[in-house]
Amino acid sequence: MQDPVHIVRRQIWRSTGVETGDRAIPEETAVALTYNGGSYAVMMATPRDLEDFAVGFSLTEGIIASPADIDSLEVIPQDDGVELRMWLRQSEAERLADRRRHIAGPTGCGLCGIDSIAEAMRPAAIVAPGGSFTASQIMAAMAALAPLQTINSATRAVHAAAFWTPSDGIVSLREDVGRHNALDKLAGALARIDIDVTSGMVLLTSRVSVEMVQKTAVIGAPLIVSVSAPTALAVRMAAAAGITLVAIARHDGFEIFANSQRLNLARELA
Amino acid sequence: MQDPVHIVRRQIWRSTGVETGDRAIPEETAVALTYNGGSYAVMMATPRDLEDFAVGFSLTEGIIASPADIDSLEVIPQDDGVELRMWLRQSEAERLADRRRHIAGPTGCGLCGIDSIAEAMRPAAIVAPGGSFTASQIMAAMAALAPLQTINSATRAVHAAAFWTPSDGIVSLREDVGRHNALDKLAGALARIDIDVTSGMVLLTSRVSVEMVQKTAVIGAPLIVSVSAPTALAVRMAAAAGITLVAIARHDGFEIFANSQRLNLARELA
Repeated sequence: MQDPVHIVRRQIWRSTGVETGDRAIPEETAVALTYNGGSYAVMMATPRDLEDFAVGFSLTEGIIASPADIDSLEVIPQDDGVELRMWLRQSEAERLADRRRHIAGPTGCGLCGIDSIAEAMRPAAIVAPGGSFTASQIMAAMAALAPLQTINSATRAVHAAAFWTPSDGIVSLREDVGRHNALDKLAGALARIDIDVTSGMVLLTSRVSVEMVQKTAVIGAPLIVSVSAPTALAVRMAAAAGITLVAIARHDGFEIFANSQRLNLARELA
Repeated sequence: MQDPVHIVRRQIWRSTGVETGDRAIPEETAVALTYNGGSYAVMMATPRDLEDFAVGFSLTEGIIASPADIDSLEVIPQDDGVELRMWLRQSEAERLADRRRHIAGPTGCGLCGIDSIAEAMRPAAIVAPGGSFTASQIMAAMAALAPLQTINSATRAVHAAAFWTPSDGIVSLREDVGRHNALDKLAGALARIDIDVTSGMVLLTSRVSVEMVQKTAVIGAPLIVSVSAPTALAVRMAAAAGITLVAIARHDGFEIFANSQRLNLARELA
């Protein structure tokens, strides 16, 4: 497996002259996901936590309902990439074969296996109501991110997705050059441990596009907090899915775009 | 067509209290690309410059070799999205049908219609050698970006891809919530005007992943300059494709990762 951080020699131009030196940049690897001997997708991803990626991608794509639906999972280095070779339980394998027959002919892409607007815009699963979070918790959760972003500390060029709970802080954090991949890795990591996903929040360093909301709905988490801004479609999808959407979370505060009823924003006494 | 900028009411939390006000965020729309009556892909994109997107996506995906291969192109609003309805010339339609038969069964996704690592990692087209650019030109080109990023000025949340030449400055600039889409829109815009692509540089505001290099190779431009960092795989692909790769271009300078022979970095006299 390649190292997720790669050191290259490069030149630096400044108005005062040219220097040569080393810089750490993120690696990127072609990752093929195969099910029962058939190729499903090739994604460009950071070569780390690929078992989590395999499980999380399979979950958020709706190929499996739980990690137990995967009979076996192997991470197999190939020329120029990595294969995540999965064998599914009989029932899931048949469901996938049905789905493939359904979309055979025209090849969906962009959104995996999707070839219609209606399918892309399907309502996200509605997360369980309830749960309450304070502004202090949100600020504490976001402050806990940076020290755990090890690949980003070296490269300043990868995204993170993490899960934070009031009792345990950051439970899992995953990094990737692609923000969708980072969240899929987190989805896989959470599914593989015993955790109550309704008890915490998904933290993101990236823009919140609609697919980030759809993936969080599959995870079942009630709250997204992101450093960056949401799209208008993501706001509408979060509102409909019952997900509280907090974004533009910086050192001095944050903004709330959907389902603020879960937040207790009263000024807390020091 | 939806407006690319959407105004929402949202709450702002600061340690001093909670306020409510308006914020501009980018819209995002499901865009279906169809060829000769069959669906090919659904992408989430910023609803602007969609004709350019249709042409550029078709070019960088290798579905067409020139805009003339598209007999007709209509932008058709649908429930919950937009269809880019294209009819191809007979020869291209047959080539696409062959390609679909080839990949039928397992459905490629992630990278459009790609279901093998070898296909994802195919060498990019090699751009023509020659061309020479100075540090001053790179600095001038990047300084010209921000004033033309109108959607980003309003939202601070979309990427841009632009083409700059020494004689004309920024010839085209396109914006999108997705960096791949922004570059595809630029590819389409350039193909639809009469321009020598070897004479200028592609400017990006985003990280340079391998697909950004592959798309630039299809465009045929000799130089990429980006605000953000490249991946290691993108550096290798740029080196192999003969593309000069400049990244981390900021107000005080830039870094060179591949094919520096095109750059004249001697200190220029004021």
